[in-house]
Amino acid sequence: MGRNKISIQKIRDERIRNITYYKRKKGLIKKAMELSLLCDIDIFVGIYPKQISQNQLLIFSTKNINIFVDKYIRNPLIKKEIYGLKDVSKII
Amino acid sequence: MGRNKISIQKIRDERIRNITYYKRKKGLIKKAMELSLLCDIDIFVGIYPKQISQNQLLIFSTKNINIFVDKYIRNPLIKKEIYGLKDVSKII
Repeated sequence: MGRNKISIQKIRDERIRNITYYKRKKGLIKKAMELSLLCDIDIFVGIYPKQISQNQLLIFSTKNINIFVDKYIRNPLIKKEIYGLKDVSKII
Repeated sequence: MGRNKISIQKIRDERIRNITYYKRKKGLIKKAMELSLLCDIDIFVGIYPKQISQNQLLIFSTKNINIFVDKYIRNPLIKKEIYGLKDVSKII
């Protein structure tokens, strides 16, 4: 049994979209955790699933969230390399 | 040629650790981008590689960073589910 390549666009079927969300959310957190441990680095992941049943922010962070925000994200002394959905081809 | 399972702990060899960082960083951003598109959700990823050459914060965010921080992370009206390295077994 092979795996079909899926095209990366919004899944229309809500049920399938929710299943995909639950599976991939776990995968993403796992990858973040592994990268953090293997390379001894700080990582913050925030996931906000607007329409999906539990309307809450899921956070995985190796540091206290407020420390992450103030010491890293909002610290003008730290250089930042910022990418959005459109820029992803630049880093991948 | 098979793949060996690696144990998830800090890689001692700096060169290998840096290579792993560059590879896995791309993988993590790719997974975040895919999850965001497939499920139409907002995601923020912040990676801070302390010792690694470029000492800067790498951010991938589907929204403007300040909006993400103020509207989601620091919004007391939004419920938050927060996990650190120790809690990962609870979601994976």
